Amino acid sequence: MQSKKPSDSRTQMTDMVLPSETNPLNNLFGGELLARMDRAASIAARRHSRRITVTASVNHVAFNQAVPVGSVVTVDAAVSRAFNSSMEVYIDVWMEDRFSGERTKANEAIYTFVAVDETGKPTKVPELKPETELEKERFNGALRRKQLSLVLAGKMKPKDATELRALFMEQ
Amino acid sequence: MQSKKPSDSRTQMTDMVLPSETNPLNNLFGGELLARMDRAASIAARRHSRRITVTASVNHVAFNQAVPVGSVVTVDAAVSRAFNSSMEVYIDVWMEDRFSGERTKANEAIYTFVAVDETGKPTKVPELKPETELEKERFNGALRRKQLSLVLAGKMKPKDATELRALFMEQ
Amino acid sequence: MQSKKPSDSRTQMTDMVLPSETNPLNNLFGGELLARMDRAASIAARRHSRRITVTASVNHVAFNQAVPVGSVVTVDAAVSRAFNSSMEVYIDVWMEDRFSGERTKANEAIYTFVAVDETGKPTKVPELKPETELEKERFNGALRRKQLSLVLAGKMKPKDATELRALFMEQ
Amino acid sequence: MQSKKPSDSRTQMTDMVLPSETNPLNNLFGGELLARMDRAASIAARRHSRRITVTASVNHVAFNQAVPVGSVVTVDAAVSRAFNSSMEVYIDVWMEDRFSGERTKANEAIYTFVAVDETGKPTKVPELKPETELEKERFNGALRRKQLSLVLAGKMKPKDATELRALFMEQ
Amino acid sequence: MQSKKPSDSRTQMTDMVLPSETNPLNNLFGGELLARMDRAASIAARRHSRRITVTASVNHVAFNQAVPVGSVVTVDAAVSRAFNSSMEVYIDVWMEDRFSGERTKANEAIYTFVAVDETGKPTKVPELKPETELEKERFNGALRRKQLSLVLAGKMKPKDATELRALFMEQ
Amino acid sequence: MQSKKPSDSRTQMTDMVLPSETNPLNNLFGGELLARMDRAASIAARRHSRRITVTASVNHVAFNQAVPVGSVVTVDAAVSRAFNSSMEVYIDVWMEDRFSGERTKANEAIYTFVAVDETGKPTKVPELKPETELEKERFNGALRRKQLSLVLAGKMKPKDATELRALFMEQ
Repeated sequence: MQSKKPSDSRTQMTDMVLPSETNPLNNLFGGELLARMDRAASIAARRHSRRITVTASVNHVAFNQAVPVGSVVTVDAAVSRAFNSSMEVYIDVWMEDRFSGERTKANEAIYTFVAVDETGKPTKVPELKPETELEKERFNGALRRKQLSLVLAGKMKPKDATELRALFMEQ
Repeated sequence: MQSKKPSDSRTQMTDMVLPSETNPLNNLFGGELLARMDRAASIAARRHSRRITVTASVNHVAFNQAVPVGSVVTVDAAVSRAFNSSMEVYIDVWMEDRFSGERTKANEAIYTFVAVDETGKPTKVPELKPETELEKERFNGALRRKQLSLVLAGKMKPKDATELRALFMEQ
Repeated sequence: MQSKKPSDSRTQMTDMVLPSETNPLNNLFGGELLARMDRAASIAARRHSRRITVTASVNHVAFNQAVPVGSVVTVDAAVSRAFNSSMEVYIDVWMEDRFSGERTKANEAIYTFVAVDETGKPTKVPELKPETELEKERFNGALRRKQLSLVLAGKMKPKDATELRALFMEQ
Repeated sequence: MQSKKPSDSRTQMTDMVLPSETNPLNNLFGGELLARMDRAASIAARRHSRRITVTASVNHVAFNQAVPVGSVVTVDAAVSRAFNSSMEVYIDVWMEDRFSGERTKANEAIYTFVAVDETGKPTKVPELKPETELEKERFNGALRRKQLSLVLAGKMKPKDATELRALFMEQ
Repeated sequence: MQSKKPSDSRTQMTDMVLPSETNPLNNLFGGELLARMDRAASIAARRHSRRITVTASVNHVAFNQAVPVGSVVTVDAAVSRAFNSSMEVYIDVWMEDRFSGERTKANEAIYTFVAVDETGKPTKVPELKPETELEKERFNGALRRKQLSLVLAGKMKPKDATELRALFMEQ
Repeated sequence: MQSKKPSDSRTQMTDMVLPSETNPLNNLFGGELLARMDRAASIAARRHSRRITVTASVNHVAFNQAVPVGSVVTVDAAVSRAFNSSMEVYIDVWMEDRFSGERTKANEAIYTFVAVDETGKPTKVPELKPETELEKERFNGALRRKQLSLVLAGKMKPKDATELRALFMEQ
């Protein structure tokens, strides 16, 4: 099984924000953005694994930036690290102002997907080889994030989360 | 401003899983569930605050349970703690098998919402008074989760996250 | 086959009214409300019968109350009487004002469902045992409503609709 | 205000039944058909009145005919009688088999709409002059149906519903 | 295989323009109208052929008329000529002003469909016999349009497109 | 007004094909693809002009390639030539097989958009400077296509369509 690069799975989903997707302040619903990110990220995971992929988890997501109706939103996803049968996908969300065209970062999120066969059983995925500085940084952070996931899910004891523990103790 | 109980904001959204919401294994898309939870939780936050509410963040969510097409899904949300202008909403997701009617826990998630006025400016919300054991437990955990949010968002230094730090050091 | 209570089938579907569901006065389309009620009521009928259920009829529905965009609408359905293979489902619709939170009755409707097997053939359903005063009142009215249905469908002669006939003659 | 004929308001809405609109037996949801009929009937009422129209009531509807996925469904609506500010709309629903093209009556329903001005206040509508035998028959039955509506809504005493009462007493 | 008339396949799809289908000027998206026309035209092609039909091509479509939100739009499609296994469908689009009811031509388009069997293989369709003057005119123009399609698709040399070539040379 | 390059307006919209968008052979509806292309192309036109853009016309589109349910479809649009207030947008559609990941050209289409101000009046757009060989080829072909549009719309006499006429006469 040949390793792949993040650019092999990169997926861009550009679309407008329609009135039926907005809250009373005329900004995109958070849930609607979570759903768009899930669709783009699952395509990225499929492109890396060439398997059916199912969402395993979503990391903590903060919504700091309102996205007004009529904006053009680009969801840009790529696999950031591959484990045995799971893949971490890093998602950058950009929005463009309707008139000025000014492009700002609207959000960032990290989803994890599992590759499965037709019966739903997890299957092995290719290794990921990061290339750019940013890709390497995201690749390296993935292990720490995985430990945090396991701790939060009660599947790993905090004291065994060595990467994570260091974060709190070394200061 | 009078305090409220979790039951004052409790919101149940029961609906079926349709074919257009499912992946190639005929299970509900993770993103679709995230969107349903956002809608139910934002109604709970509105019921607590009587204000426009906008999604501020979503805590780490794990998808451990596939939800097949044709299932009845109940998203059950209630405010678990109120801060100044923000509210933590705890969401339990239940699914019922189409034929046996057996009810199993499909998911659990925690969203945070901010109450805003018509111009989008944060406004004060009522205090929350938990009543049952489960409500008290969720109320107490909310502070630790808030610190984790702030740390993950880079808005608090790990060493100042006293509640959280204890978790990693005391073992 | 064990009898069930109305609370066993009770189904709450709470959701917002979005702009794409409203008429030029910005109120919820009647047809959209009829569709939401059908979905909630069919889940209630499934919960009572644990079978596939298909809509058999809708009683006369009046729309006396406009439901403005942005309202929170709760469709609350429960089986009110079980016959051989059919079930009457009583639906109460509540709406909450976006700001005051005031809750008013928006509508009331009665749907009838038939339980069927995988081939579409009607199958027997459990008996319904009403408990509260309101449940008993709805249970008792169901027979009269069934006769009216049959008369309107031309399947029963008015003179044989003894329950119904009394209504017009005794005054 | 000039009178109009039923053919002036006649509205045909032909469309396919898609998988996302069907129940586990792959037949069109009853609620989905109710919503399509509401849309076609409200256009017919608008064509008669040239006003904003809002759904006032739906008469008893029976679903005797399953409509399978892939069928072509034609909803055919026309105003059957005009009152002061309200209009009764008669709807015939036809379905065509996907392959044979055989056309069968799938349903029949009667909705009532009220014409309103921009503030939601009821306004006068033109008189309806039926032309064909069928149109005259539907026109004549409308008064009896209106009384039944009023009785069912508790706005008319059964003994005053002279048209309706005759139905039960004369036999 | 018996020939058919254009009126045998005529399909009317009348519906409103909703806010979720409109651009920032509150007019119907061109792409949304293209999709509605495809649905109506494919039903017309199915009615002519009694087969599964798939879109083969769309002729040049100009959008000269904005269709505002709240308009009633009627898409009126009928087969204009049948070839071996393909059918040209002519579509007229009408819009009605929300208040005056004035009806204007909003668009005109020509789609071509191919009739296929369950495996996707093209199958023979009945001949079309035009009746009215307009139907005959559209029938006659179809051959020239077919040549243009073939030339544009690079499947016919311009010099062999005798019907089309005349158009440019005779002047 | 500074000129722009095709890459300045390039827009990628990647998404899956869902069951609710497919015909009885489980392939994407032609009309659904036309609508997706319109959305991507209108974003490209907006990126070039920084104005509201409305669809002016669609060139002849042929559907040679079925796109099965579950495919990943990428709609890739960029402005290919700018005129006074109108822009030609060239769209390439790619599909990926669900399992092999093999990428094939599914379609190609050309839409024209007009840039308008808030009142719907056409406004000037920047010039386009093509860079690559392919971009230059598409730029050069745009004039001929514009003449064909005008001839087909009856706004230019065939004999005045010098670019086009040559095509038919020189062979």
